[in-house]
Amino acid sequence: MDTPFPLESLIPIAAGREPADLLLTNLRLVDVLAGEVYPTEVALAGGRIAAVGPGYTAARTLDLGGAYLAPGLLDAHVHVESAMVTPAEFARAVVPRGTTTVITDPHEIANVLGLEGIRFMLECAKGSPLSMFVMAPSCVPATAMETSGASLDAVDLASFQASPWVLGLAEVMNFPGVVAGEEAVVAKLRAFAGKVIDGHAPGLTGPALAAYVAAGIGSDHESTTVEEAREKLRLGMTVFLREATNAHNLRTLAPLVTPFNHHRLCLCTDDRQPSDLLDQGHIDHLVRLAIGSGVEPLVALRLATFNTAQYFRLHDRGAVTPGRRADLIVFADLAEPRPHLVFRRGRLVARDGALLPVEGPRSVPHLRATMSVDWDAVDLAVPAEGTRLRVIGAIANQLVTSHLVDRARIVDGRAVADPARDLLKMAVIERHRGSGAVGKGFVRGLGLARGALASSVAHDHHNLAVIGVDDVSMATAARRAAALGGGLVVAEGEHVLRELALPLGGIMSDRPIEEVRTKLDAAIAAARSLGSPLHDPFMAMSFLALEVIPHLKLTDQGLVDVDRFEQVPLWVA
Amino acid sequence: MDTPFPLESLIPIAAGREPADLLLTNLRLVDVLAGEVYPTEVALAGGRIAAVGPGYTAARTLDLGGAYLAPGLLDAHVHVESAMVTPAEFARAVVPRGTTTVITDPHEIANVLGLEGIRFMLECAKGSPLSMFVMAPSCVPATAMETSGASLDAVDLASFQASPWVLGLAEVMNFPGVVAGEEAVVAKLRAFAGKVIDGHAPGLTGPALAAYVAAGIGSDHESTTVEEAREKLRLGMTVFLREATNAHNLRTLAPLVTPFNHHRLCLCTDDRQPSDLLDQGHIDHLVRLAIGSGVEPLVALRLATFNTAQYFRLHDRGAVTPGRRADLIVFADLAEPRPHLVFRRGRLVARDGALLPVEGPRSVPHLRATMSVDWDAVDLAVPAEGTRLRVIGAIANQLVTSHLVDRARIVDGRAVADPARDLLKMAVIERHRGSGAVGKGFVRGLGLARGALASSVAHDHHNLAVIGVDDVSMATAARRAAALGGGLVVAEGEHVLRELALPLGGIMSDRPIEEVRTKLDAAIAAARSLGSPLHDPFMAMSFLALEVIPHLKLTDQGLVDVDRFEQVPLWVA
Repeated sequence: MDTPFPLESLIPIAAGREPADLLLTNLRLVDVLAGEVYPTEVALAGGRIAAVGPGYTAARTLDLGGAYLAPGLLDAHVHVESAMVTPAEFARAVVPRGTTTVITDPHEIANVLGLEGIRFMLECAKGSPLSMFVMAPSCVPATAMETSGASLDAVDLASFQASPWVLGLAEVMNFPGVVAGEEAVVAKLRAFAGKVIDGHAPGLTGPALAAYVAAGIGSDHESTTVEEAREKLRLGMTVFLREATNAHNLRTLAPLVTPFNHHRLCLCTDDRQPSDLLDQGHIDHLVRLAIGSGVEPLVALRLATFNTAQYFRLHDRGAVTPGRRADLIVFADLAEPRPHLVFRRGRLVARDGALLPVEGPRSVPHLRATMSVDWDAVDLAVPAEGTRLRVIGAIANQLVTSHLVDRARIVDGRAVADPARDLLKMAVIERHRGSGAVGKGFVRGLGLARGALASSVAHDHHNLAVIGVDDVSMATAARRAAALGGGLVVAEGEHVLRELALPLGGIMSDRPIEEVRTKLDAAIAAARSLGSPLHDPFMAMSFLALEVIPHLKLTDQGLVDVDRFEQVPLWVA
Repeated sequence: MDTPFPLESLIPIAAGREPADLLLTNLRLVDVLAGEVYPTEVALAGGRIAAVGPGYTAARTLDLGGAYLAPGLLDAHVHVESAMVTPAEFARAVVPRGTTTVITDPHEIANVLGLEGIRFMLECAKGSPLSMFVMAPSCVPATAMETSGASLDAVDLASFQASPWVLGLAEVMNFPGVVAGEEAVVAKLRAFAGKVIDGHAPGLTGPALAAYVAAGIGSDHESTTVEEAREKLRLGMTVFLREATNAHNLRTLAPLVTPFNHHRLCLCTDDRQPSDLLDQGHIDHLVRLAIGSGVEPLVALRLATFNTAQYFRLHDRGAVTPGRRADLIVFADLAEPRPHLVFRRGRLVARDGALLPVEGPRSVPHLRATMSVDWDAVDLAVPAEGTRLRVIGAIANQLVTSHLVDRARIVDGRAVADPARDLLKMAVIERHRGSGAVGKGFVRGLGLARGALASSVAHDHHNLAVIGVDDVSMATAARRAAALGGGLVVAEGEHVLRELALPLGGIMSDRPIEEVRTKLDAAIAAARSLGSPLHDPFMAMSFLALEVIPHLKLTDQGLVDVDRFEQVPLWVA
């Protein structure tokens, strides 16, 4: 993973016969292994920690003024694309927060562009101040009940086996397929047998959960209750405590942590949008949340460092001990760690929240355009075929939805939105192949009084999702999003109110994260001005299309009852 | 490592669609991961744990009568040869005690027979009810200050890299060589870079210890004080708490264990002789000792199971969770675990302390004879060259010795033993090459009033060690040991009192462990009848020849001052 720097080169330095590159002094070491905090000095050389202890000399010395020194933070599971920026911009946001390693599942871009998308992410990561390890996306497409831009089978995934940057198989979201022993899923597990295989099993319990674990799946980040997480721990899973933009689980799960089991827990962000990254932070935010929820600071930092390194078998990081990478953070308050210095491989890469200039490729690799919609074939109308229909119930700060049934509002033989009852129309327009396919349904919880939102970010297939009060607004928003090469749009009637272009696969911008954030915030503000009360209605909408999280979801192929794991008609008899 | 049994085969069983092979009921599960004990049921299939939980069916059901079920025990570091029996007999002794996996360093046989010796051990392990993983011996010979039967350099060791049974590089005892950066040692570290590398660093501290860790060495089992162990933990080492026949460290180190660091600790036996194995036990004995020293039972069992599996990256064992190997122990008392049932890969292999009949090769592979002494060249006399000489001070239950200086007893121009002052003569006779080399010295602490002891077990070079009151007794004992093809002998004058033949490399018997134990006990009793007060004077003698443990030792090349790591003359000016 590293530029080869033989550990043997550290021997004369650690032994004190030769000077180190850099000596950190006047610090309190947060020892996440022995579980102690104590004053000492740390000598760095060749990007590694050469020694911990007093009495070393170095070419340069840095007095840390009595601050705390801890290992760089790791994110155990993140979809970088959810920040809607390139990996380089993502790094610019999270490295100053203390994150030095992320384990990412690039399944967003992979659903759009397949192997080409994964290679794009790996290419972007080169020369970055952030170590970005990849888990091979296991569910592209997530299920057969959607149309994605690419399909990756076991043979495709096996082509990544040899990469030192690919650690294993990413979250196996098709848990019904695992439990049923479906060959296409099992073939992927077989291809990664003996390696790390991540899970995604919301609400799975009892024999089904046992079957999922027996298949070799080692982690889960979807627990929403302590009881659910405890059953997973008992069955041997490593539990990732998640705090995403649209899934706040950490405070709820904090009571799970005990002196005996804390070594089986990690922290992950899963999906975080730009303003949350810039305002709240990244894994550092989760560390503070955990501490604020009663987790001992040493334990919280351990969850964010060594535990994740150990789970992913990254034996070269996660603690401040001789021989490991010198990925380090410095902060003033153990009860509320806010890194003011960040070192990666022994170099200071961020100070006071800002990334320092680093070398490396700055240009974004080329990606082909991906929006392909046959507008002549797209029809947003919903003919009336009954009186009662299924409604997706969006729940604030949760990825799960309610499976509701309500009476339709019928006008001129068509079912239409009824904003007075917060009943909005939703469409998911296939945008990879120009097939004209449109999944149509209704949703409650978005709260728009007028207008429409459209987005080419719609997990995980990233078709073009649109929610609105009227078909004109919906068509305006959707067509503009397509014309941008992908993006988020707020429209009212024929007017585009706000937009954010996402030309990279229709899910990422090629612009700086601050600009993305400003435009996204403006779009969200516009959505709010149209009546939506949600923290981020675009992220909420994007998960309404994800048919592997209960209970009712909408893809380009129609409504999916996730509990039954099958498509269901819009109309209820 | 296993016979291939794809995890996917477990899915229908864990999901409850197909019956398991065996269902264990009415049990209290010791969950070393979540840190809980709770009643449940465990379904086994294909040698694996298929599921944990209620409601399963199976071809057979076994009611455990409310007993505790825990993972099979692991020994993190053991020299099987120290039991003086073959691996098959070792397994017969330890499997009924609950040990299902050992990580062994075959450096005893390797010092005699090199790669041939290691292959012999691997061959013996085939079909055994004990999983025997090998660490490639790093120090054959231990140093250049001894004559061993073989020499293994980095290229030799690298030949084992591909074996799934070889996990890494065994204890790097040449810590001065590591700290000095000697190329021959570093080449071995380089050959195993990124794999598990075990350490052996008694008393190493400060920058020297940092250098040793920076070189990539991950464990140590030589700590004798809590302070020493704590420094090693702080520097990132996994600390093995050892309880050997001749090194009792566990009680002393038990206070080290805390809720935060217990995951960084393992248990190991290092060297245990037959009667200790048969009377006290193996890792189970250490578990009980730890509990008796104040360690929580759940933690003690964790040290003996999951922690060791995790350190050695044996991700298929160490806990009772779906998908892992069904290596299991059953016992009645959590405060004093004594396994009465032992399962390996789902089969009952031991009951009530006895191994059940198992298939597999029962015959011992051939090993060539190894004793080669040119008796015409061997001279035990010590010409007087002064008045004061160095004396090795043996310390009961410790591998370290004192470096003493005392006045010589001189008779007819020769230094001789003076049993009145417990000053005995010791010789180490080269026995691999017939060179006639003899290292000669004096020792205190063995306590013989008359006669002599000889042994071809003399760590790690296994030359022929002899300690006695007079040269006739010494010659009788040494010559008989050689005539046996290796072994232990107690002699008085020209009479052999007791003997134990060790024809396999001069260090192991080809006989059942009970017979070896009886003969060894008889030999020890004979040594006691000659005046020695030690628990096992043969094991004590065997470590007086090991020049990598402080402070003064004797090899066939003479006295070694271990602190200075150089040979020193017998006589003091």
